[in-house]
Amino acid sequence: MHVAVLFFAFALTGTTLALDNGLMRTPPMGWLAWERYRCDIDCENDPKNCISENLFMDMADRLAEDGWKELGYVYVNIDDCWSSKQRDDQGRLQPDPKRFPGGIKKLAHYLHNRGLKLGIYGDMGKLTCGGYPGTPLDKIELDAQTFADWEVDMFKYDGCYSNATEQELGYPLMSKALNATGRPIGYSCSWPAYQGGLPPKVNYTQLGEICNLWRNYGDIQDSWDSVLNIVDWFFENQDALTSAAGPGRWNDPDMLIIGDFGLSMEQSRSQMALWAIMAAPLFMSNDLRTISSGAQSILRNKMAISINQDALGIQGRRIVKEKSGIEVFWRPLSKNASALLFFSRRTDMPYRYTTSLSKLNYTAGSYKVFNVFTDETASLKDSTEFVVSVNPTGVVMWYVSAPAKFNLRQFYQGGTLHGRVYDDREENAIPRVFL
Amino acid sequence: MHVAVLFFAFALTGTTLALDNGLMRTPPMGWLAWERYRCDIDCENDPKNCISENLFMDMADRLAEDGWKELGYVYVNIDDCWSSKQRDDQGRLQPDPKRFPGGIKKLAHYLHNRGLKLGIYGDMGKLTCGGYPGTPLDKIELDAQTFADWEVDMFKYDGCYSNATEQELGYPLMSKALNATGRPIGYSCSWPAYQGGLPPKVNYTQLGEICNLWRNYGDIQDSWDSVLNIVDWFFENQDALTSAAGPGRWNDPDMLIIGDFGLSMEQSRSQMALWAIMAAPLFMSNDLRTISSGAQSILRNKMAISINQDALGIQGRRIVKEKSGIEVFWRPLSKNASALLFFSRRTDMPYRYTTSLSKLNYTAGSYKVFNVFTDETASLKDSTEFVVSVNPTGVVMWYVSAPAKFNLRQFYQGGTLHGRVYDDREENAIPRVFL
Repeated sequence: MHVAVLFFAFALTGTTLALDNGLMRTPPMGWLAWERYRCDIDCENDPKNCISENLFMDMADRLAEDGWKELGYVYVNIDDCWSSKQRDDQGRLQPDPKRFPGGIKKLAHYLHNRGLKLGIYGDMGKLTCGGYPGTPLDKIELDAQTFADWEVDMFKYDGCYSNATEQELGYPLMSKALNATGRPIGYSCSWPAYQGGLPPKVNYTQLGEICNLWRNYGDIQDSWDSVLNIVDWFFENQDALTSAAGPGRWNDPDMLIIGDFGLSMEQSRSQMALWAIMAAPLFMSNDLRTISSGAQSILRNKMAISINQDALGIQGRRIVKEKSGIEVFWRPLSKNASALLFFSRRTDMPYRYTTSLSKLNYTAGSYKVFNVFTDETASLKDSTEFVVSVNPTGVVMWYVSAPAKFNLRQFYQGGTLHGRVYDDREENAIPRVFL
Repeated sequence: MHVAVLFFAFALTGTTLALDNGLMRTPPMGWLAWERYRCDIDCENDPKNCISENLFMDMADRLAEDGWKELGYVYVNIDDCWSSKQRDDQGRLQPDPKRFPGGIKKLAHYLHNRGLKLGIYGDMGKLTCGGYPGTPLDKIELDAQTFADWEVDMFKYDGCYSNATEQELGYPLMSKALNATGRPIGYSCSWPAYQGGLPPKVNYTQLGEICNLWRNYGDIQDSWDSVLNIVDWFFENQDALTSAAGPGRWNDPDMLIIGDFGLSMEQSRSQMALWAIMAAPLFMSNDLRTISSGAQSILRNKMAISINQDALGIQGRRIVKEKSGIEVFWRPLSKNASALLFFSRRTDMPYRYTTSLSKLNYTAGSYKVFNVFTDETASLKDSTEFVVSVNPTGVVMWYVSAPAKFNLRQFYQGGTLHGRVYDDREENAIPRVFL
């Protein structure tokens, strides 16, 4: 019982420590332009795909009319290359007049009228990564106020052309400036990605106090190699990263590339599932006007989304790493439930992996298992050996409800399940929650 | 005119030099078990996927009943792990009695009754790669006769557990032994793959005389990285390889993995297109019982197949390699036509590539262009600048019919188009055919 009390104490502490804007109690969901549309400003030759108000209005239409909004995908986020190369007469940022003739405020209204939210982008340096005007220290208050005046709902603050000292000043300053506007603006900080993503260089306690989410690592590209590289980094460093995440503050492994060109259907399911395990922000970067039904069904998977959006906001971990290339991931969820993910790094054929819930550290009891991507259900005793067939580069994802005893003893003990040391006295207490 | 005459002389010479079984005047097409089913012999727990007569009969049913056969996919090829671990009383190979209770001859009849052909597998060493009885030098005649007795139509001779000397004796010996049976048996030699795939270690003139096709390089795996690795090797070594190919004798970059787990739709089209440019054997290794309609439509693309199967049998080349990651491939086809392939190695967004047919070395004239994967057609003057939008890891493939002048001057001059040296006197002769 005292463990549960301690847990709620932790949760409350988390609330007061996190950026005090009350936003993003679950990972934000929506659409972000960068991975798919980059800095395409050639509206003359590529009018449907260039960074312009039309692109964002198109995506807003799709989110609002095709049922994405109801699933939680509500942010429509502008990335780099939206602005004019010059600030206006009063020194304020202004959008490119040809590509955003209506201005950002009008675009925000277009979104708000459809129940959506608008995100915008800036950079700590003199220039953005794409060479547009940045928001260095002396422009932070002005630009925060401009975004608030435009009724923007989220701001991503990139770090190109800035140094560690400027970042150390600027990222907290922007947090205060955004709060000072009085408008709730979700705040995404690229700071850790520019500092290697790991303590002691990165102070995740501080980040949780000033940002709602942060990019820890490099940009995703449209390839399975890129997804794997990101997944490797996040789970190899899970001991340093998972404790940073919680309601209102999230590690961000970058956009979903499902529906683009580089992932197979298996790999698309894997990205969706791994991002759910990681409690990652779900920003699609794709073309919602032409996306295939296969990709849609993955992005719209309600159980995967609900695992991602679980109210506890606990980031999951890799608990098993087999020589066969099979890995098992686990995330504790509210109502004593959990998500289990079996992932294959193999590139040959489906692999029949044999294990049991007790081998995966579940305590004695009978569990209900729901297969996230097939909708199959089963009852499973902790001791029952079962086989999951995992496709190459694919996943099998389970939602495991746990009416019976549930043991989270390996959580936060570092590394994988095999070879762990734990205290036997922990065996039968319920529920086990890490501190 | 004399060029055309020389060309036909070459073609005739090709005929007499190639393995004298009259087979595979165009690259063989069909289905091969290995990549997708490996050495799965666990029929108890995995009855639908284990290496057994049921698997080959299932695939035969699909080829015959679902229209694959009519497209040219007629071979059903057994790979490793089909045999008993022991030869029979008379020293002959025998199939595993549990997994092939009907025997190979009955299976061959099952296929022949459906208008299909059966391929089987052996190895130059004492053991196959999977540890089953091999066909070393002293067993070659016996086993060739056994395969003929079983009415097998194709034989793949692997090289595990054999050395260079044994291979130098064994591969020609098997060729003679197969011919001596009097049964036309297509002969696939893994020999070059075991000798680095390049001259002087590999004698492609000799290979063309004794084998119908040969694996030059490592096994394909179910990943885009593997496809790229193979493509890189074949085109980096195109000067050594293209001249080896022709009717009856083919370089084999290994199976098509379209319909499996690792390739996106873009990447699937890329494999199909690149294999067509390479005049590669088209052996699918997938599950034809469950294959998606998207993968099917790529594998069934009639224009891609007809380019692959072009009667001239000239293996195509990479002619442009841009810093942007765009590459252009070209294959001359019969009727003065050609195939052009634009391929993107990028992993960001569709790339708009600007060029013209004259920049790609086509001579003055007006050409008809047919887009293989979209069925669009266009007329294009050689001098007209055009833009092709190539998706990341994707292709745009054109069949270019050439009523007008056509210049193949860069063919067999090595390397890429840019920076080439060619003889201006060649400019206006038609048609240009390499020697």
